Amino acid sequence: MGIEKWNIPCGVMPHGPRNLISDVPGVTVGHTTIHEGDHHTGVTVIMPCTDNIFKHKRVGAAYVHNGYGKTLGTIQIQELGTLETPIALTNTLNVGLVHDALVDYTLTRCEEDGTDCVSVNAVVGECNDSSLNRIAQRAVTAAHVKAAIKNARPDFEEGSIGAGTGTLCYGFKGGIGSASRIMKIGGQSFTLGILVQSNYGSTADFVVNGRPVGREVLELMKTKDFTPAQVDKGSIMVVLATDLPVTFRQLQRIARRAGAGLARTGSFIGHGSGEIMLAFSTAQAYDEDEAFESRRQVKEELLDVAFRAAAEATNEAVLSSMLHAQTAKGLDGRVWYSLADFELFEEKEV
Amino acid sequence: MGIEKWNIPCGVMPHGPRNLISDVPGVTVGHTTIHEGDHHTGVTVIMPCTDNIFKHKRVGAAYVHNGYGKTLGTIQIQELGTLETPIALTNTLNVGLVHDALVDYTLTRCEEDGTDCVSVNAVVGECNDSSLNRIAQRAVTAAHVKAAIKNARPDFEEGSIGAGTGTLCYGFKGGIGSASRIMKIGGQSFTLGILVQSNYGSTADFVVNGRPVGREVLELMKTKDFTPAQVDKGSIMVVLATDLPVTFRQLQRIARRAGAGLARTGSFIGHGSGEIMLAFSTAQAYDEDEAFESRRQVKEELLDVAFRAAAEATNEAVLSSMLHAQTAKGLDGRVWYSLADFELFEEKEV
Amino acid sequence: MGIEKWNIPCGVMPHGPRNLISDVPGVTVGHTTIHEGDHHTGVTVIMPCTDNIFKHKRVGAAYVHNGYGKTLGTIQIQELGTLETPIALTNTLNVGLVHDALVDYTLTRCEEDGTDCVSVNAVVGECNDSSLNRIAQRAVTAAHVKAAIKNARPDFEEGSIGAGTGTLCYGFKGGIGSASRIMKIGGQSFTLGILVQSNYGSTADFVVNGRPVGREVLELMKTKDFTPAQVDKGSIMVVLATDLPVTFRQLQRIARRAGAGLARTGSFIGHGSGEIMLAFSTAQAYDEDEAFESRRQVKEELLDVAFRAAAEATNEAVLSSMLHAQTAKGLDGRVWYSLADFELFEEKEV
Amino acid sequence: MGIEKWNIPCGVMPHGPRNLISDVPGVTVGHTTIHEGDHHTGVTVIMPCTDNIFKHKRVGAAYVHNGYGKTLGTIQIQELGTLETPIALTNTLNVGLVHDALVDYTLTRCEEDGTDCVSVNAVVGECNDSSLNRIAQRAVTAAHVKAAIKNARPDFEEGSIGAGTGTLCYGFKGGIGSASRIMKIGGQSFTLGILVQSNYGSTADFVVNGRPVGREVLELMKTKDFTPAQVDKGSIMVVLATDLPVTFRQLQRIARRAGAGLARTGSFIGHGSGEIMLAFSTAQAYDEDEAFESRRQVKEELLDVAFRAAAEATNEAVLSSMLHAQTAKGLDGRVWYSLADFELFEEKEV
Repeated sequence: MGIEKWNIPCGVMPHGPRNLISDVPGVTVGHTTIHEGDHHTGVTVIMPCTDNIFKHKRVGAAYVHNGYGKTLGTIQIQELGTLETPIALTNTLNVGLVHDALVDYTLTRCEEDGTDCVSVNAVVGECNDSSLNRIAQRAVTAAHVKAAIKNARPDFEEGSIGAGTGTLCYGFKGGIGSASRIMKIGGQSFTLGILVQSNYGSTADFVVNGRPVGREVLELMKTKDFTPAQVDKGSIMVVLATDLPVTFRQLQRIARRAGAGLARTGSFIGHGSGEIMLAFSTAQAYDEDEAFESRRQVKEELLDVAFRAAAEATNEAVLSSMLHAQTAKGLDGRVWYSLADFELFEEKEV
Repeated sequence: MGIEKWNIPCGVMPHGPRNLISDVPGVTVGHTTIHEGDHHTGVTVIMPCTDNIFKHKRVGAAYVHNGYGKTLGTIQIQELGTLETPIALTNTLNVGLVHDALVDYTLTRCEEDGTDCVSVNAVVGECNDSSLNRIAQRAVTAAHVKAAIKNARPDFEEGSIGAGTGTLCYGFKGGIGSASRIMKIGGQSFTLGILVQSNYGSTADFVVNGRPVGREVLELMKTKDFTPAQVDKGSIMVVLATDLPVTFRQLQRIARRAGAGLARTGSFIGHGSGEIMLAFSTAQAYDEDEAFESRRQVKEELLDVAFRAAAEATNEAVLSSMLHAQTAKGLDGRVWYSLADFELFEEKEV
Repeated sequence: MGIEKWNIPCGVMPHGPRNLISDVPGVTVGHTTIHEGDHHTGVTVIMPCTDNIFKHKRVGAAYVHNGYGKTLGTIQIQELGTLETPIALTNTLNVGLVHDALVDYTLTRCEEDGTDCVSVNAVVGECNDSSLNRIAQRAVTAAHVKAAIKNARPDFEEGSIGAGTGTLCYGFKGGIGSASRIMKIGGQSFTLGILVQSNYGSTADFVVNGRPVGREVLELMKTKDFTPAQVDKGSIMVVLATDLPVTFRQLQRIARRAGAGLARTGSFIGHGSGEIMLAFSTAQAYDEDEAFESRRQVKEELLDVAFRAAAEATNEAVLSSMLHAQTAKGLDGRVWYSLADFELFEEKEV
Repeated sequence: MGIEKWNIPCGVMPHGPRNLISDVPGVTVGHTTIHEGDHHTGVTVIMPCTDNIFKHKRVGAAYVHNGYGKTLGTIQIQELGTLETPIALTNTLNVGLVHDALVDYTLTRCEEDGTDCVSVNAVVGECNDSSLNRIAQRAVTAAHVKAAIKNARPDFEEGSIGAGTGTLCYGFKGGIGSASRIMKIGGQSFTLGILVQSNYGSTADFVVNGRPVGREVLELMKTKDFTPAQVDKGSIMVVLATDLPVTFRQLQRIARRAGAGLARTGSFIGHGSGEIMLAFSTAQAYDEDEAFESRRQVKEELLDVAFRAAAEATNEAVLSSMLHAQTAKGLDGRVWYSLADFELFEEKEV
């Protein structure tokens, strides 16, 4: 979906047909949303491909922008440069359980197609949704993870859903957001997609395409019940997918540029905000049978368009997460508004 | 206990009274061992201190010697330089579950003493024990983790126990091993302790204090039912504790030297062996109340004695894990001998 | 000086009296500017303190934002966490010579005060000024380095001077820029200062406080002889100084936030632009005589103000480098305008 | 040459015809040795290929084992994964000058064959030879660097020569050493070669294939004028070449295993010993013309043989540097013996 409706240009590159990470062929996303009593949390799973990724590993990379976070599974990605499970996102205190469920899923998946599997490196990211969610009660179950995987599809929803159910962003309601960019390289067309779980930022810092929207809202709401976020706490997870043929090293360089996209929304990378990028390329699965493999890779100088795509799509994905989120009430009764409620942006017919 | 009985000098430094990681004051270790049907696995927990570590965080560091492993929780350690939970070790496919149980433990512990806790960075290491343990059935439960924590004491056992129940080392039975060294620095005495979960190495590579013991055994057993490890697969976890006052950067430098200890046993850091060092210093808990804190640190040039201690104690801890392990039969009927069975080393009265 | 004249707010924090890196007590900066035939280049030296830094080493850190650059001397900084020489900036092909001259300076300095010195880790950064400077002829000499050191003072000039003589930024003339921020932490006041050598960015990407100034100029100049920078090439060096008491790890976290400042000027971290941050804290010199030292450090949660200061001051230092630079003609006859020529910003009386 | 003469097995793999790094096709090595008054130092250059490496860049990687060293040029190698100049080794205080000379060489080389060159990332390693060499007088000149390049050939000498002229190792005379290993992978034969500049270690730590040779010599010489090295200071540079087709990430993994080779000589990675590995693969030059390139790479699981080769050849190269070195007198009159003087090893006819 993206944010076309609001006419907010985020850069200069064209987006793909859905303006979602699923514009990268084969990538799908599934959510499980939990609203039960004080539990407002969930799980979002990014499926990198339609085949068994454990059997057909893809190039993977991680980049730690601010490591005050609990993301699991990056050590092996950095050593071997491969991703071998879907990527799951959830709340901070359920990462272990979701990791366990992803291992379970992978063992079952491998049993089904006869792939030998005694070791699995599952990857799980998180944000802390404790303002809206009674996080210490740890509401997520393995069944929620399985349901998210089962729900995965290309036309997934954004906003207050899945792992974004209880998150906040710049003092507004945060959530899941996504965007994509089309890259022309060497006469060919490739796609780069971003999905974020947004949960960071202080209100006064928030800017949209250079406009100080955070401060505008503070002005607008100063006589009302609007309580701004004063401190940049929380975290943001950025998942990056592309079908560009790249090496691990190149993919890591691309993933790093997502940080420029975050800065475009006003972030100075606050201490309390764990910011982790997880990236994969679907271009070429590894062939486990050959002693030597010829793998295609893009010329280094041509990475610039992928760097720009990563920054632009991350910027847009954050805005999309906020504009699609719905106003919600916190555990302490405080209202966390959707950015969309303020009618700050010209809407256009889509 | 250590390996005094066998008269194998591992370096030149004196060890502490127990020759265990628990010679570092406050450090205790607990095991849960699982032997049920085809399940031969377990959990080992290293408790870094007697108070609530979440409330009184210690300097922590991690060092990835070979990242083909699934250790969880290192991103935050590297960013903030602190450890805030006990360290748990288990089998590869149960790391998520054990992480979840450690989070649970920490929440409960904090509730007990009224510490605010909505975010926990649990640390879990692993080795793959699939030769002896039906690993895909994932036998470990949260209760096992709790029991290990409850069992923690200074005079813990080594060998085929806890997380070392099903591990192998250089084609012999591996397990949990520990050793310590006393360091004289600036007129004061400090302790450095190591605990390993050993599960790596090919038989022909194994050396003890320079002696090619692996090849000796191969010669000795060549007409018998001894099947050597041909490939260096598996992993080794190294946990390092010290009461030396150090910064994160210094502690990471010390942790890295454990790799020299592994090399002294014959390792060339095989591809398939994830080798991760997790370290902490008990010297000084962080004081969360002060804007500025004065923290003591050792002069950089004096780290050499700690570097040597890390190498020596790691070397000895690996040998100790093997010499205390007991011969076991693998799932495929293959026998994995204890190194102690071969009477290769002169025994002395202790 | 900073950019007060132009009324361009870069964030919300107050700057120091000079709005220069030299607002950090003890820090001075010296330039040597070379204009001889086709040689338009130079040297800029940042002196971290007034005493002999080799004898009284300071906490130092480096952060590589994009490693396509030739900065020398960072390996030891990352290992030991100390800076032991002044920091010199120059053109890409003279880094070796300037390194050699810095070693010479340090040996002489140590001889003067009787400090034993047989090993020196000099630190040299660079940008490629080949559009204005016949770089392959390598105009810089050891005498230029010495002169820059001799020239060092708190009230140094910015713009087309020293190592910024031949640099470009976003298709305009670049150069040396500086800014500072005052930080209130724990009831005390500290200063963070930034100095940049700016030489990166494509014109269309350039934004000032959210305003698309690059595109405005492209529109304004489209019928004139303005040739925009199309590709983000070149490099930017960021030197960060503070008197906040921090550890190496904390300082590295601060240095990294300079990247958010670069993003605020429009950067997406182009492939061809080496971007390196070099940081030091003057708070406390190391005492080489003590086996144990008590060192003051700020509480981690309070770093946010330093993070913000780093981002704001870097943003402002880049603008200052451009606004103080003077229009120059390139080796190929092309004119590189000063940003100040366009009268885009309201000027105020200072 | 290697150390065949002494019958000291270093591992189990076969070496190449010369047992030198130059067994990797295209690799040559040149020395310039300086003996003038108190100057006993020099330059050693490793030429990675016979064509212009700046034009035909090779995969390169660096690994910092202990960063207390002044090696220049690694930032760009780590970012881009390529080597674009020869690698030069020299003494600590001449790295800047040698860097400058390498840039000069590269500019000239590119001018000769019409390659555009305005930016060069030169790579220079070092050891501190101040016991034998009046290092502060910095005897090396650009002419020495050029002569070393000109001298480069496959059948180069080892021992007290070039950059090894004034170095020490484990209290003996150190120097340049080299060794190679033949690797059978996927039915094909590849070569891995190591060259070291050895300058580290304390005498009591020195072991040869497990034998405590350092302690044997201490015993042997205790009534004589033998002054052991007490502290592990100095540095070791390890240059690794291979014709195995690998990615940057894989090459870095291989380079890291050289550390296991150092540990086999007794090192515990002393604080004062900067230990840096620089590696390159000659397998495939980069093709700068293509937007996409197919590059061959070895399957990850098959890297084990390269890991072992790196450890074995590094171990042997260190011994070779010592056995080929010649007894020399230090600036203070102290004698630094060649290891070969002690007739500790059985010699065989070669």
